[in-house]
Amino acid sequence: MSKPLVSIIMGSDSDLSVMQQAADMLEQFEVAYEMTIVSAHRTPQRLMDYASSAVERGLKVIIAGAGGAAHLPGMVASITPLPVIGVPVKSSNSIDGWDSVLSILQMPGGIPVATVALNGAKNAGILATSILATADDTLLVKLAAYKQQLCDEVIRKAEKLEKSIKKP
Amino acid sequence: MSKPLVSIIMGSDSDLSVMQQAADMLEQFEVAYEMTIVSAHRTPQRLMDYASSAVERGLKVIIAGAGGAAHLPGMVASITPLPVIGVPVKSSNSIDGWDSVLSILQMPGGIPVATVALNGAKNAGILATSILATADDTLLVKLAAYKQQLCDEVIRKAEKLEKSIKKP
Amino acid sequence: MSKPLVSIIMGSDSDLSVMQQAADMLEQFEVAYEMTIVSAHRTPQRLMDYASSAVERGLKVIIAGAGGAAHLPGMVASITPLPVIGVPVKSSNSIDGWDSVLSILQMPGGIPVATVALNGAKNAGILATSILATADDTLLVKLAAYKQQLCDEVIRKAEKLEKSIKKP
Amino acid sequence: MSKPLVSIIMGSDSDLSVMQQAADMLEQFEVAYEMTIVSAHRTPQRLMDYASSAVERGLKVIIAGAGGAAHLPGMVASITPLPVIGVPVKSSNSIDGWDSVLSILQMPGGIPVATVALNGAKNAGILATSILATADDTLLVKLAAYKQQLCDEVIRKAEKLEKSIKKP
Amino acid sequence: MSKPLVSIIMGSDSDLSVMQQAADMLEQFEVAYEMTIVSAHRTPQRLMDYASSAVERGLKVIIAGAGGAAHLPGMVASITPLPVIGVPVKSSNSIDGWDSVLSILQMPGGIPVATVALNGAKNAGILATSILATADDTLLVKLAAYKQQLCDEVIRKAEKLEKSIKKP
Amino acid sequence: MSKPLVSIIMGSDSDLSVMQQAADMLEQFEVAYEMTIVSAHRTPQRLMDYASSAVERGLKVIIAGAGGAAHLPGMVASITPLPVIGVPVKSSNSIDGWDSVLSILQMPGGIPVATVALNGAKNAGILATSILATADDTLLVKLAAYKQQLCDEVIRKAEKLEKSIKKP
Amino acid sequence: MSKPLVSIIMGSDSDLSVMQQAADMLEQFEVAYEMTIVSAHRTPQRLMDYASSAVERGLKVIIAGAGGAAHLPGMVASITPLPVIGVPVKSSNSIDGWDSVLSILQMPGGIPVATVALNGAKNAGILATSILATADDTLLVKLAAYKQQLCDEVIRKAEKLEKSIKKP
Amino acid sequence: MSKPLVSIIMGSDSDLSVMQQAADMLEQFEVAYEMTIVSAHRTPQRLMDYASSAVERGLKVIIAGAGGAAHLPGMVASITPLPVIGVPVKSSNSIDGWDSVLSILQMPGGIPVATVALNGAKNAGILATSILATADDTLLVKLAAYKQQLCDEVIRKAEKLEKSIKKP
Repeated sequence: MSKPLVSIIMGSDSDLSVMQQAADMLEQFEVAYEMTIVSAHRTPQRLMDYASSAVERGLKVIIAGAGGAAHLPGMVASITPLPVIGVPVKSSNSIDGWDSVLSILQMPGGIPVATVALNGAKNAGILATSILATADDTLLVKLAAYKQQLCDEVIRKAEKLEKSIKKP
Repeated sequence: MSKPLVSIIMGSDSDLSVMQQAADMLEQFEVAYEMTIVSAHRTPQRLMDYASSAVERGLKVIIAGAGGAAHLPGMVASITPLPVIGVPVKSSNSIDGWDSVLSILQMPGGIPVATVALNGAKNAGILATSILATADDTLLVKLAAYKQQLCDEVIRKAEKLEKSIKKP
Repeated sequence: MSKPLVSIIMGSDSDLSVMQQAADMLEQFEVAYEMTIVSAHRTPQRLMDYASSAVERGLKVIIAGAGGAAHLPGMVASITPLPVIGVPVKSSNSIDGWDSVLSILQMPGGIPVATVALNGAKNAGILATSILATADDTLLVKLAAYKQQLCDEVIRKAEKLEKSIKKP
Repeated sequence: MSKPLVSIIMGSDSDLSVMQQAADMLEQFEVAYEMTIVSAHRTPQRLMDYASSAVERGLKVIIAGAGGAAHLPGMVASITPLPVIGVPVKSSNSIDGWDSVLSILQMPGGIPVATVALNGAKNAGILATSILATADDTLLVKLAAYKQQLCDEVIRKAEKLEKSIKKP
Repeated sequence: MSKPLVSIIMGSDSDLSVMQQAADMLEQFEVAYEMTIVSAHRTPQRLMDYASSAVERGLKVIIAGAGGAAHLPGMVASITPLPVIGVPVKSSNSIDGWDSVLSILQMPGGIPVATVALNGAKNAGILATSILATADDTLLVKLAAYKQQLCDEVIRKAEKLEKSIKKP
Repeated sequence: MSKPLVSIIMGSDSDLSVMQQAADMLEQFEVAYEMTIVSAHRTPQRLMDYASSAVERGLKVIIAGAGGAAHLPGMVASITPLPVIGVPVKSSNSIDGWDSVLSILQMPGGIPVATVALNGAKNAGILATSILATADDTLLVKLAAYKQQLCDEVIRKAEKLEKSIKKP
Repeated sequence: MSKPLVSIIMGSDSDLSVMQQAADMLEQFEVAYEMTIVSAHRTPQRLMDYASSAVERGLKVIIAGAGGAAHLPGMVASITPLPVIGVPVKSSNSIDGWDSVLSILQMPGGIPVATVALNGAKNAGILATSILATADDTLLVKLAAYKQQLCDEVIRKAEKLEKSIKKP
Repeated sequence: MSKPLVSIIMGSDSDLSVMQQAADMLEQFEVAYEMTIVSAHRTPQRLMDYASSAVERGLKVIIAGAGGAAHLPGMVASITPLPVIGVPVKSSNSIDGWDSVLSILQMPGGIPVATVALNGAKNAGILATSILATADDTLLVKLAAYKQQLCDEVIRKAEKLEKSIKKP
């Protein structure tokens, strides 16, 4: 595999089942990525090192997922000038996900995090691809094809549903 | 000014005071942009035309702001493969901004919107710049410099505060 | 079956178990309907075509159900002058249904959506019937009979409960 | 004025400034209406009488607005088979409008209320018109024209905004 | 059993498992009660009749439980001068109980409902007893004894817990 | 004035403007009351003394208002067997009143607090009166008259509104 | 075991499974503690006695956990000058934990409670230890070692995850 | 002034008016403190340096206030073994303070933050003092005196209120 352009990090290995969906989308679009655990709260120095070396290591986009008081995406965004995509994870002790969503979304002026839906790691993978596609027409074509495929699938299901009603 | 790379659209002219902050950041980073009004609900065909022609017109990123049941960012994202940044606007009839935030953030799998904080148009401008910077090192340098400037400003204010305490 | 007067559309086939309850009520009132899948986000052009041809195809009311950032009801209402009934669906990734409710309910001035309760597709079917009943006295009589039937059922259950208490 | 087809009722005269917007829309569409105060909590018998005589008095649609624990729309819907449109009003003692919204929207299966946005009386007037338009093509034409007018207004404002940017 | 002093009503037989806890407490305090189903939305006339005859039938307190857009307690309170205790029930289609709580609690000035906790029917039974106890010293003594019993039970459990820790 | 039957207490003198409305209603119904400040958090021993002597001092009902983490009503209810009415006050540092409401309403099984609406002290005064009226027919008559007066006032306002519309 | 420095109290034995985690952490740091049940609502006098004797019994920190309208932590803090750590417990009848959180966190000025996350008893144990560590360097060293251990564990898991990805 | 034992830091100088109340309490208790600005998002390295040197500089407690996606308290707690008190600040762009509260309170297991009420900096100052008082009896006496003073003030106000009522 070529040098990773996208990094997927998560605050805990318990976030893996959600964050894997970002990896799956990147693989589908054939975008090279790396994936690891970086905890803002348990490994703050590792967070500093990881985020501050991201540009020189050739990364272009960072996807960061975390739950509860989710500081990982915002702290990475505070260190690197790369675009950071935040994935609020509904962890076991979360208050219905509100804590994850608000502590990732509500960043102060100057330090953006591109937040996706609760547990929306799949969309984080697509968004990272669309960011890379701003300078890579092959990816843009793939994204357009993916959109077409989503559309075709709906139409196929719609036809199936319509048939099942008309039968009687 | 050169051909716009970023589009700033809003659902209503009442969103302008918020969305202007995205334009201000893009001007600060010298990123060419266009800005106009596209209402998902009042001009659906205009929305279709605008979003479906965005790639061929050379746009790279779309920033879309809206309030209440805010469908503009999500609908633009449903049409174009470009990255779409959503700005939830706290409009006058909003329920404390929750409607704007949730109707932009909670997009279904397949159609991401990069959501920023409530009224966070400033961050939308910075995020758009960081997306373009993935293929433009000049912009990356500018973003790093901007981060440094934010840092310097805090330190200056911190020194001022510390002095004001020690004086007595 | 005669030409459909009511359309039931949903954003995804995963909404079918909820939306089927609207169909069940329409069948009970012998109101002709059609039912299919139209995704605002995955099939935006289909949405445009479907909604803009609704009047000429003889439809009178559209029931649209969707979950999460639920844009389908509002976008249909933006295109057609027909009354649109929105059903917020509590989908798997929803934040307790709040996203569905707010993104359907909080439409801006000019573009109403008649919103029913979370997962309230049954009521959507009744509401559509009552709308048609404004010009169809047979339906009005059926609705009054349905109300009486609900009342009778409560009274029967009340009597049963009262008896079960008095027994000892 | 001809015999009223739409009734606008509100729980208190303090709701008038909001509910007047429904009346304004009906006047714009030349739909005959009546407007009065009916309090579910202070005039329960009046509520019963008003709602149970609505059909025979020739009314076709009832718009009911109330704030706080807002029972008026749901109670009217429990009595009459006519379509009832509920307007949650953000009254002075409301908890940010949540009480009004939830006590109108979350009706049980069997008794629908067509709920519009918080303070959305304007949309209630339009929705009532679109309900009548299911049997009145003149109204349908007026609604289509109104939609076109909303669209034209956005385009005019968009052009104005675009010009104001290009000037320098 | 003597003539009932307390009435327990509920909007649906699905509320029975919750509301039975009110009955259990009244039996424990030997307070005569009646229990039945009265639906504000499905049996509005029954509601009127039941509530308006409550005083003459010798009832002193009414306990009313309902879920979702819960109008039963407030509507009963609008008709009778008796104290009404409202029990918000977390029904299956409720939005986490918020709809039940707010539509019972947030009554307008003039028409109080004594609201207890979500699913708090047990406390409704105790509260009804304490209301009757304002004119019945035997009940007051029973309530004081019940309080003492709660206290004793905690102390017994505390001793058990303390012992279980010290053992090793 | 005769011996007080109702006690109105509040956690802070900043709650007085709200709690005065309870006193006003009691005066209107000619119910003797006392009013003072008892802070659960700043005067816990005073709370103990006040609540534990309430029965012997002849009090029949206690109205307790507090804001934020509002423990006063629940703690009074933990000590006395008298019925306790809780008034959630929207104090300056409250989170939109939610803290006051939930910390008064959500009492555990065994210790009820009769909670009224946010800032609903007026209703607390009426509720206290209706509790006393369970053993005082004069009060019951007054409450029925008060209800009639509320009704008459609505009808008068309704007539005024109807006239103002018909004039043109 | 030596004389307890930390007290762990809870409102009900149903909170034990959560509160035990505080005890586990204190044992890990070899901090002497006692643990028992004190109910603000069912044993108010026991609460008064327990809290007012805490200083003289040599306690340094009190950890108090409770659910629903959770008054225990705040009431303890109102009586003792010791630092009180509040643990909001998500009990069975809680409204998603919001009631527990708000009734512990939102204490008025003058009476602080050090609130930890919903069900965060583990953190309460660590926080109590860090409070004692302000005067006990041995504990401070243990806390630093614990932090290092958390860090090492993340790094070990990160390496494992990275390896599992690279394998194919 | 002697060497600071408590540090008060805030994310922005706009938090000063709130955080000053912590300083005021520390001055009242004659506890030496330092106060400055440390932004998690704009000065991440300063945050690392400040927090990691806190122990060796002799600090015993850190009070950290921030608004919106408030990462400062949690990040400081991730670095230092000292007790960290978090003050959620209701900043201008906050969603009613919920973001500040949840992103400070909901810390993961292992890294506690002692959270106080929204804008509760006054209580943060008192809590810091009570932490130091675990090893300083002079402070404990001062805290007990402060509690007595709060109590006396309530009683004085209660007497004033009672007199004002009895006058007529």
